Amino acid sequence: MRVLGVDPGLTRCGLGVVDGSGGRTVKAVDVGVVRTPVDAPLEQRLHVVATEVAAWIARHRPDVVAIERVFSQHNVRTAMGTAQASGVVALMAAQAGIPVAFHTPSEVKAAVTGQGRADKAQVTAMVTRLLRLTDKPRPADAADALALAICHCWRAPMLERMAAAKARSDELAKAHKARLAAVAKGRT
Amino acid sequence: MRVLGVDPGLTRCGLGVVDGSGGRTVKAVDVGVVRTPVDAPLEQRLHVVATEVAAWIARHRPDVVAIERVFSQHNVRTAMGTAQASGVVALMAAQAGIPVAFHTPSEVKAAVTGQGRADKAQVTAMVTRLLRLTDKPRPADAADALALAICHCWRAPMLERMAAAKARSDELAKAHKARLAAVAKGRT
Repeated sequence: MRVLGVDPGLTRCGLGVVDGSGGRTVKAVDVGVVRTPVDAPLEQRLHVVATEVAAWIARHRPDVVAIERVFSQHNVRTAMGTAQASGVVALMAAQAGIPVAFHTPSEVKAAVTGQGRADKAQVTAMVTRLLRLTDKPRPADAADALALAICHCWRAPMLERMAAAKARSDELAKAHKARLAAVAKGRT
Repeated sequence: MRVLGVDPGLTRCGLGVVDGSGGRTVKAVDVGVVRTPVDAPLEQRLHVVATEVAAWIARHRPDVVAIERVFSQHNVRTAMGTAQASGVVALMAAQAGIPVAFHTPSEVKAAVTGQGRADKAQVTAMVTRLLRLTDKPRPADAADALALAICHCWRAPMLERMAAAKARSDELAKAHKARLAAVAKGRT
């Protein structure tokens, strides 16, 4: 499975492509960062991010695009820009017919370092080690994008099992409800 | 000037096209709302919004797309979805080469009703009156989109004057700085 991880942002948007083998082995394919000028109009900045992400999708043909789930806990203005960028990234995936998965920062940190409150340096160090890179990916947004892709490679089988279990339980609940309705009808 | 006003959202995205004459006279051209299913994947919902907005831009060829500026004061989850939708709308404008303007809800309310804390019913009533509509636009998102477009028609000349004044003052400051530097250089 090939995953394009995206750490969305307007000033810096991290992109990382990772191949997963099904097991724990992961391989780095490409990593980079898109920058847009702070003083450019918002729609132009989004346009640059969208164009670059579409180019990465066309070049690497990922099976999934994994995007960091944005929370507005910190600076509201920054969080809004990040959310707008993440929407544009998700749209590029949809336009290419590729499914999107969202993972929270703590899910990514927990997957890669074993603990959800790891700092940036720990995440970068683990990403470097897991992908057997000779140099640390820079800036941190690029390392975060690779971490997201790794996180998705590892969580995907579990998420699929959960989705299958949910579908099965929904089906059982539906059948049970139908049976109850039939019994009730038989009584009247 | 033709303005496409957009009240961004995933469940309901309001769209309203208004022609402004330069004075206070405004004319409704089209109004509508895009709905996306709550249980669809986020990227699919964004895709529906993007496709519809692009179709409206192609059909009505607005000079500007005016979008409501999102704040995350209320529900964080909803605010994030709204921000993602607004990013996608801004991107559609950028892809069509059309400038984007953002107005806050209170700027819109103040422009249309005369006070920034007007409620939805007051905004709808004023929009109906200003555009001389026979029926109130429904749902509220559609009325909000028209209000945004009217707001932009009326604020645009003022915003342009402010931008021109800012450019002029930046130029004067630059010239003044250059003169100071030349004087300082003459002294050494």
